[in-house]
Amino acid sequence: MSGPPVTAADPAFPAYDAGIAEAMLATSSGDAGGGLTEFLQMAIIDVGPGHLTCSLPVTPALLNPFGALHGGVLSTVVDHVLGAVCLPVVPRGSWPATNEYKINFIAPVSGGDLCARARILALRRRSAVVQVEVTNDGRLVGVAQGTVAIVAPRVD
Amino acid sequence: MSGPPVTAADPAFPAYDAGIAEAMLATSSGDAGGGLTEFLQMAIIDVGPGHLTCSLPVTPALLNPFGALHGGVLSTVVDHVLGAVCLPVVPRGSWPATNEYKINFIAPVSGGDLCARARILALRRRSAVVQVEVTNDGRLVGVAQGTVAIVAPRVD
Amino acid sequence: MSGPPVTAADPAFPAYDAGIAEAMLATSSGDAGGGLTEFLQMAIIDVGPGHLTCSLPVTPALLNPFGALHGGVLSTVVDHVLGAVCLPVVPRGSWPATNEYKINFIAPVSGGDLCARARILALRRRSAVVQVEVTNDGRLVGVAQGTVAIVAPRVD
Amino acid sequence: MSGPPVTAADPAFPAYDAGIAEAMLATSSGDAGGGLTEFLQMAIIDVGPGHLTCSLPVTPALLNPFGALHGGVLSTVVDHVLGAVCLPVVPRGSWPATNEYKINFIAPVSGGDLCARARILALRRRSAVVQVEVTNDGRLVGVAQGTVAIVAPRVD
Repeated sequence: MSGPPVTAADPAFPAYDAGIAEAMLATSSGDAGGGLTEFLQMAIIDVGPGHLTCSLPVTPALLNPFGALHGGVLSTVVDHVLGAVCLPVVPRGSWPATNEYKINFIAPVSGGDLCARARILALRRRSAVVQVEVTNDGRLVGVAQGTVAIVAPRVD
Repeated sequence: MSGPPVTAADPAFPAYDAGIAEAMLATSSGDAGGGLTEFLQMAIIDVGPGHLTCSLPVTPALLNPFGALHGGVLSTVVDHVLGAVCLPVVPRGSWPATNEYKINFIAPVSGGDLCARARILALRRRSAVVQVEVTNDGRLVGVAQGTVAIVAPRVD
Repeated sequence: MSGPPVTAADPAFPAYDAGIAEAMLATSSGDAGGGLTEFLQMAIIDVGPGHLTCSLPVTPALLNPFGALHGGVLSTVVDHVLGAVCLPVVPRGSWPATNEYKINFIAPVSGGDLCARARILALRRRSAVVQVEVTNDGRLVGVAQGTVAIVAPRVD
Repeated sequence: MSGPPVTAADPAFPAYDAGIAEAMLATSSGDAGGGLTEFLQMAIIDVGPGHLTCSLPVTPALLNPFGALHGGVLSTVVDHVLGAVCLPVVPRGSWPATNEYKINFIAPVSGGDLCARARILALRRRSAVVQVEVTNDGRLVGVAQGTVAIVAPRVD
């Protein structure tokens, strides 16, 4: 479902800003995660109007003593893409903040790459509903759904 | 709601093993998180029959450029306590694995300590329903609810 | 946790309107459900600042051929109290609309009364986070958590 | 996305029983809802391996005084299809029981038909993860995701 960055216009996302999308790809994790996204080596690998994909390597250091990836890693990448997918489609100066989400873990992960693809299902003035599929080398390992608040820029 | 470790028996959790609870406190994060819990400096600070509290410092390295803690940190601590709270109350050899959870973010976090307190609402043979409150220096900043599978030991 | 209607002021809910609370009790289901709440015989039995309880009888007509209550009944009462609990604490003319919620079913229900108690965990200008416990003759049978949008009155 | 009943085999659902699917279509709501599904005039209009669609008319009696459909109706149809979609793909004698779900309301509904389409994302021996899209005359009005327990037949 991935591929080269989509930067074409999409009528459903009239405010889509391809420049922001390109900047997010260039700064890899979108530069909004703090040390956690760097520690996890999260990288945005695809951005387009209403969709975004983020990837990270499942390194041995992230496994627990039983050889399974901590659910917090899946959670973190889900939380990250929920907000990031909204950034290029909201009015410039607005800020997406995850309000809530729900995640189902479908299969354990023990290696390879983790890939989270977010898709905006509905975009309103003050919030968006977003769905996320998490795959591990092509296999579905998690699915999530959440609400992102679109915080308007401060008027001073 | 915290306090000294509770190790007394509780009729609702007949399999409660105070020895496991003490070992979890001693190994700090419960030794089941891999490098992520170590990176986040997560520490279990209270364990008892049906409840568990985990804490971590909100260091500057965890903040994004806007000075706010990544939601992935709250998510990770929630995911961690969901499973950890079940460990001392399931039959020895069984393993708790988070199946799913939902989290609401209530207020942004920018410093101090993050504290996640889990409480088992229902414990059945193969699963538990758990609620989590996340506070930041006493202020409620997140709330979560999830299902943990109780994976039976393999019979070989 | 129930009891006589609480109508005293509460500093956490400065806009609490005891008159609205009393009117909701008098009209039973809060008069906002349409035919579904009437069909289910839902009745608001307690309202106060930040909390509300709704009850309904589990009649044989609501059971499936296996003798169990349809999850839709629990869902409906949860959805109902999520919004109703906000009505007396939001500015007059505003309207609470459930944005999302998550429910865990804890035990099957086959008779008696179903009781859903909602509690506001956080109230902001445009949304509230609410938790709901559903009991069946005193036994916990479901738990839910959701977000309610506070829709401002139209300015014409 | 609907269409004539799909009854062909699907390798992902080896236990798929087309006879059960046909019986569910014939009994309309699948005969497992009790009076609530009858009151709502819910009808299963499509069943296949791993997917199922249920429809109901949004009658004036279901609207609240403000002309909007109660969220409990969407919730009920979601809860219903979560279990129903699993019935034809689980071992004969097993029973699907919704454990939990989360729903996001995307747009208000005031008339027309409500249509809920469930899709199984993962089917394991004891549980399934299911996604649901709810549309109102073609427009997306809700989305849900949940876990269904596959209860094994009793061995007497």
